[in-house]
Amino acid sequence: MLFGKACIFGGRARYCVVKPSACLFTTSSNMAKSKFEYVRNFETDDTCLRNCYIVVRLDGRNFHKFTEQHKFAKPNDNRALGLMSRSARSVMEELEDIVIAYGQSDEFSFVFKRTSTWFKRRASKLMTHVASQLSSSYVFYWKEFFGEDLPLLYPPSFDGRVVLYPSNRNLKDYLSWRQADCHVNNLYNTVFWTLVQKGGLTTAQAEERLKGTLAADKNEILFSEFNINYNTEPAVLKKGTTLIWEKRDETVTKCMKLPNAEEKEVAVTRSRRRVQAHHCDVIGEQFWEEHPDILEDDNC
Amino acid sequence: MLFGKACIFGGRARYCVVKPSACLFTTSSNMAKSKFEYVRNFETDDTCLRNCYIVVRLDGRNFHKFTEQHKFAKPNDNRALGLMSRSARSVMEELEDIVIAYGQSDEFSFVFKRTSTWFKRRASKLMTHVASQLSSSYVFYWKEFFGEDLPLLYPPSFDGRVVLYPSNRNLKDYLSWRQADCHVNNLYNTVFWTLVQKGGLTTAQAEERLKGTLAADKNEILFSEFNINYNTEPAVLKKGTTLIWEKRDETVTKCMKLPNAEEKEVAVTRSRRRVQAHHCDVIGEQFWEEHPDILEDDNC
Amino acid sequence: MLFGKACIFGGRARYCVVKPSACLFTTSSNMAKSKFEYVRNFETDDTCLRNCYIVVRLDGRNFHKFTEQHKFAKPNDNRALGLMSRSARSVMEELEDIVIAYGQSDEFSFVFKRTSTWFKRRASKLMTHVASQLSSSYVFYWKEFFGEDLPLLYPPSFDGRVVLYPSNRNLKDYLSWRQADCHVNNLYNTVFWTLVQKGGLTTAQAEERLKGTLAADKNEILFSEFNINYNTEPAVLKKGTTLIWEKRDETVTKCMKLPNAEEKEVAVTRSRRRVQAHHCDVIGEQFWEEHPDILEDDNC
Amino acid sequence: MLFGKACIFGGRARYCVVKPSACLFTTSSNMAKSKFEYVRNFETDDTCLRNCYIVVRLDGRNFHKFTEQHKFAKPNDNRALGLMSRSARSVMEELEDIVIAYGQSDEFSFVFKRTSTWFKRRASKLMTHVASQLSSSYVFYWKEFFGEDLPLLYPPSFDGRVVLYPSNRNLKDYLSWRQADCHVNNLYNTVFWTLVQKGGLTTAQAEERLKGTLAADKNEILFSEFNINYNTEPAVLKKGTTLIWEKRDETVTKCMKLPNAEEKEVAVTRSRRRVQAHHCDVIGEQFWEEHPDILEDDNC
Repeated sequence: MLFGKACIFGGRARYCVVKPSACLFTTSSNMAKSKFEYVRNFETDDTCLRNCYIVVRLDGRNFHKFTEQHKFAKPNDNRALGLMSRSARSVMEELEDIVIAYGQSDEFSFVFKRTSTWFKRRASKLMTHVASQLSSSYVFYWKEFFGEDLPLLYPPSFDGRVVLYPSNRNLKDYLSWRQADCHVNNLYNTVFWTLVQKGGLTTAQAEERLKGTLAADKNEILFSEFNINYNTEPAVLKKGTTLIWEKRDETVTKCMKLPNAEEKEVAVTRSRRRVQAHHCDVIGEQFWEEHPDILEDDNC
Repeated sequence: MLFGKACIFGGRARYCVVKPSACLFTTSSNMAKSKFEYVRNFETDDTCLRNCYIVVRLDGRNFHKFTEQHKFAKPNDNRALGLMSRSARSVMEELEDIVIAYGQSDEFSFVFKRTSTWFKRRASKLMTHVASQLSSSYVFYWKEFFGEDLPLLYPPSFDGRVVLYPSNRNLKDYLSWRQADCHVNNLYNTVFWTLVQKGGLTTAQAEERLKGTLAADKNEILFSEFNINYNTEPAVLKKGTTLIWEKRDETVTKCMKLPNAEEKEVAVTRSRRRVQAHHCDVIGEQFWEEHPDILEDDNC
Repeated sequence: MLFGKACIFGGRARYCVVKPSACLFTTSSNMAKSKFEYVRNFETDDTCLRNCYIVVRLDGRNFHKFTEQHKFAKPNDNRALGLMSRSARSVMEELEDIVIAYGQSDEFSFVFKRTSTWFKRRASKLMTHVASQLSSSYVFYWKEFFGEDLPLLYPPSFDGRVVLYPSNRNLKDYLSWRQADCHVNNLYNTVFWTLVQKGGLTTAQAEERLKGTLAADKNEILFSEFNINYNTEPAVLKKGTTLIWEKRDETVTKCMKLPNAEEKEVAVTRSRRRVQAHHCDVIGEQFWEEHPDILEDDNC
Repeated sequence: MLFGKACIFGGRARYCVVKPSACLFTTSSNMAKSKFEYVRNFETDDTCLRNCYIVVRLDGRNFHKFTEQHKFAKPNDNRALGLMSRSARSVMEELEDIVIAYGQSDEFSFVFKRTSTWFKRRASKLMTHVASQLSSSYVFYWKEFFGEDLPLLYPPSFDGRVVLYPSNRNLKDYLSWRQADCHVNNLYNTVFWTLVQKGGLTTAQAEERLKGTLAADKNEILFSEFNINYNTEPAVLKKGTTLIWEKRDETVTKCMKLPNAEEKEVAVTRSRRRVQAHHCDVIGEQFWEEHPDILEDDNC
């Protein structure tokens, strides 16, 4: 909160008649500052390698306890997923070089374009800014999703990391890895909580029941015992959420003053860039073929 | 939000009779996951050097605009300083290895003890967690300091960095550097806004007036023109805020049932560790002599 | 020079009857070792990012003085260039994952293939090994190039660095950068020493004469004043030296014993991989089209 | 081998009348250079943290094979140890900020003073220079130790790493760790080769015999079976080699011309800094008390 421009004098000593004591104070205080400034040299450069995608992934800290205390619906709480998605959008809108973000459960990955020079590509700045923006947004938008009845009990937190990917193949594989993880977790959780909530098992019994089962076995339990076809579950749960920028033409009506002082309503069309959410497969090639602008050419 | 334990099968193929199609799906999905998992190897190790103090410093992003939009008092807004301090306390309470934190204006530095193994000393985890906790707390506690009348307009953000300091001398000099910076900025801002608010100067005129002045000159302006003795300004503004852990004996009265079924009130005293705020000088040795437990011996 | 297998006991204390003093010694010495072993944790991981070309570039240290003291011919000493090239070949033969090396003057760059796992991609190991092998080879092969008459006066040294390149484009541009540098330097040096050696100028006069001249001007000086056509200068000087692996069929005559105990000479052909030197342009595409196996596909 | 000063023009285009083709060439070649120069931005900063000791440790590569091929005496070859020590001295004399070096067998550690600014503390430069200087010296001084009869068969190599130590305690513990390692290895090797060379065991039998033995057991084998008191073995083997700088007064006789044109011999004493080898204990405090100038105060 610097409300003016600070003048740093670097400890110059100046001859001074008026107030010896204050002058001494001045000198020593400014000199002190410059005397201590050597500590800046302990900062290290953590610039991300050029021409690589920069991925910042955030994960909720102690969210198991957090979901218990806030009575999240199980296995999935749509309000919570909506809030994560809303907060991630807030991150994208603040850091424009993010070209795609992917989230599931309490984690979200943000991908900066490979030629980004945001924050001079300094890893620490990038990841703390993303972590900060997501966290403040999560609290800020809480009420929009949970209403007045379920107040936030304490400020939650996320931790993050930076990973670099040199090629389009590597980046797609990263996103595929997260989406495959989403699928594996969601199938497990769906069966687990169905066994508990509809099948009357204890959580320990449900865990025991699922030990060693494959995806096919889990599909079979859902279908034959509970008449649930996993394939018809909502895509947001099975596929997670992918946020990308999309250009849309927006037409607004403007009131224009004509030369003869009359007014006239005019339709004005502008192209605007907006964050759009998808819940589709990103493992196959179709998504990438439909959105060729997300990635840059490898040959650069 | 993992509500159960995910079972990762690592792509084992298993013979399967019931549902060929689902089985194929299973196999391919789990195999897909393991096929993509190589991307984890792109993560790099950013463990902080052992036996060094780990400092995480956060700074408000675009807080000049933020303070304008939220009509912060100038040159200092006590509510805003209180909120920063409250949020920083929330960080210390969550990350117990922080031994001291120092803040001024919209920045705060958190110092992890040199032997900390929190997050295995991984720089990215430490700084994102600190950034996240401060940011969510800032929004969470906003109302406590600004009340209902001044609502938060949008989620603010902070960015951060990690710096390592190998010796007690280096760490003290770091904190001294920040406190000397606090002094230089606050003196400037105090005179600047006094010239504007009480002296009737424009901001441009005030800037011009202060060009090239030393601390003694600024003290003189305050004193001779506005009858303000800078030395009697509040310590929180001149010295910033230092947060440390302090042990306090807390005595609570408990109601005990005696063997004869009577009840008796008993005073129980426990030692509790609490975060305590100070607004004192940390440049001299006195503070460190009074709190010998903050730093660890260099000879370790 | 460990001539056996050292047995590290990790400081186990064992009850011991025979020789109390020696036993104490044992315990303390092994315990000492394990007590100190914590210092290993101060090593940091410097693994190179996957899927990037790893370039190690070495430069001669104080070679200006070294060339003076060893009376190298100016502007180029073919023996010295031959020795650098021979030493670089020795590096390639020892570290098989190097796919191409490029050198000029007293510098050489070594490129590890992007999928290399040599030394687990640890930057420090890679660059020190390369620096070490080049340096020992330089001394070892000195006599082969300079003969007995010009003995090496003292051990020379090189320093190095590691740089990562994520794409084929980046790597080619790196090599182009070094070759363009070779051209610029060699043209300058050729004109400079021609002015001194044939034109009778002092070095200061030659420097003055060349100030501000472009390549065309330098070509012109050589041609019109000294009747030298720069284009016909040796390629090794203009283009530097590129080392790559090439497969060659080698036919050797072997003596085979036939079943009837007679002997017969048989020609045996094997494919062998050898380091081959080129002095051609690597900036254009032709070189890369002729040697498609050097680089790996970007889409991996 | 830059024999002049290269003039880099950064691709300025200049109008040119004389030789259009050459001019075009010029422009494109210089422009090419500047066009490629972006690759420099891929270099990363690897500055070592300030106020820490910088240790570079080198190890011989494939020295087991190397010692076999050069028929080194077992368990220790004094010529080889002398050559390592001589080469390490060469490193110290070239890089003056090294305050102490410690070696055993085929490894050597070099410690730069904590305030060193050599190579701007760039880790890659420091470790490659050390590796290079040691390697070229090893080949250069080979003949001094092995004579003409045992020629070096091929250029050997070393690999290295950089480790930082923030405190005097940590650095001493590092050196103690290496010296404890020296002791453990040397005791093992001494007994092992005594069993083989004097006891007539095969190497497999000797290995089996020593399995599970402690230091006391090994001392006992040497003493009771071979009448060898390990304590009287040479210190260079038991303690390794420690190199430090020592000031010595050197008195030389100079011939001076007196005013009356007579000549007179005068003794002139100068203080000179020389590398001195020790084979003493560095684990205890005595060594450090006797050489208080090696380490700098922690409180800096």
